[in-house]
Amino acid sequence: MIGLGNLGRAAARVLLRGGHPTTVWNRSADKAADLVSAGATPAPTAADAFAASPLVVVALLDPSVVRDVLADVGDAARGRAVVNLTSGGPEDARAHADWAAEHGADYLHGAVYAVPQTLGTEDSSVSYSGSARVHEDWRAVLDLLGKGSFLGADAGRASAFDVAVLAGMYGMLGGFLHAAAMGRAAGIDAAELTPALVSWLTGLFPALHGFAGEIDRGDYTTEESGLDMNRAGLATILRAGESLGVAAPTLRPLKDLVDRQVAEGHGAASLARVVESFGGGA
Amino acid sequence: MIGLGNLGRAAARVLLRGGHPTTVWNRSADKAADLVSAGATPAPTAADAFAASPLVVVALLDPSVVRDVLADVGDAARGRAVVNLTSGGPEDARAHADWAAEHGADYLHGAVYAVPQTLGTEDSSVSYSGSARVHEDWRAVLDLLGKGSFLGADAGRASAFDVAVLAGMYGMLGGFLHAAAMGRAAGIDAAELTPALVSWLTGLFPALHGFAGEIDRGDYTTEESGLDMNRAGLATILRAGESLGVAAPTLRPLKDLVDRQVAEGHGAASLARVVESFGGGA
Repeated sequence: MIGLGNLGRAAARVLLRGGHPTTVWNRSADKAADLVSAGATPAPTAADAFAASPLVVVALLDPSVVRDVLADVGDAARGRAVVNLTSGGPEDARAHADWAAEHGADYLHGAVYAVPQTLGTEDSSVSYSGSARVHEDWRAVLDLLGKGSFLGADAGRASAFDVAVLAGMYGMLGGFLHAAAMGRAAGIDAAELTPALVSWLTGLFPALHGFAGEIDRGDYTTEESGLDMNRAGLATILRAGESLGVAAPTLRPLKDLVDRQVAEGHGAASLARVVESFGGGA
Repeated sequence: MIGLGNLGRAAARVLLRGGHPTTVWNRSADKAADLVSAGATPAPTAADAFAASPLVVVALLDPSVVRDVLADVGDAARGRAVVNLTSGGPEDARAHADWAAEHGADYLHGAVYAVPQTLGTEDSSVSYSGSARVHEDWRAVLDLLGKGSFLGADAGRASAFDVAVLAGMYGMLGGFLHAAAMGRAAGIDAAELTPALVSWLTGLFPALHGFAGEIDRGDYTTEESGLDMNRAGLATILRAGESLGVAAPTLRPLKDLVDRQVAEGHGAASLARVVESFGGGA
């Protein structure tokens, strides 16, 4: 196990619990202490950790740290199955896969859908892409981490899926923070507001599936509230925020996109049409 | 029923279904046709509609339209119980309540937590604030719209709650649109991405309750992933977006807030600390 941040530590515990001899390495060695108490073997260098096991699971801060660590490991990677769980972009995963191929290693990228506390439980799933062989050979071990799915041979595909989901997550988190700031300014506790927000968001999930269909079809005709209604709603929120002294740094850009669509004559179209303003069209 | 947009039409149908004689008015009269077929009485002017019923339910596009309609209604409001379901800011609801008081009417503001299709079902709830008397006297009718709760005599409180929840909703919607744009640019259908996103967001709801507690206590110490981790994650998403040609108009401001907190030395603190950057402190 390379990297003992929250995810790496959780993964190491899952492997140990599964009865697998586990060697751990982290840049600052003190993170290994309790895992060593639980039966893990500490490695003095990342290269030693690679040398110790046929399967190497990586969970580091970000792709640039992965790059640095792999550079240190060098030829110790030969013959290894490398499963990288570090969040990154599709281009990062492809670069790691290229590095692995040059160093005689097989590379599988894994995007983890779990918080560290739920890793290895039934609430945990991992999307993989890259080496089908690694996914097949090590499935019994990988299944300990969560329900696995294989998205294809392009090492970047699982990451593309991952960053898209994370972008959606940060949208929700930004919205939550904005809501909490509005509530606080109005004397409403976040603990009072959050259950209502969660219930409201849950009720909106079916609408997301509807929007998804519109986006895939490229047809934004709707019988529901269209961009005109959303424009009015966003203006109301922004105005209320101003009267409460709350900034809307995360919401104003969305209003700008909606305004642009309305100005282009799409006021009756579905909110999903705003996806056209993000660029990156297929 | 004043206003026959999606919400007003749904509310009128709920009232008719409940067996209540219902007079309807809308600026463009054609919206009333199918409700009249279902038993509603059309009113030629808003003042006529006010004159027709002791309880007047209002659902218009936004508070400025409410203001215009009330100005037309004038003294016809005397003695009426006005329940306004139009989304707006707390300052709008207080202004409507002031207008009502000046014109001898009682004002209750209602923030509807339902999409028009679910209004009047068990998935629908409405938060009220303002006239407790209207809430008491008309509870049997109001309960048809959804599970009601009374938040206090300040007509603005239900709206403050409402705009906060809506700000949270638009955060999630902006995140969804961003995710869909990222997926599309990577050749992943929104219909494939959305179930994973919904499942991931659902799994994050407990974390929102945790953040809420931190915000209410003003203590952002955390054992979980802190601002440093979120900063790395946001950078990864933005970089991946660039490589996919997808703009991040809704995400970049959140990253800026996180960066600012980290620059101020709070890298180990919880993401919830970002709420401090929105202003509007209690």
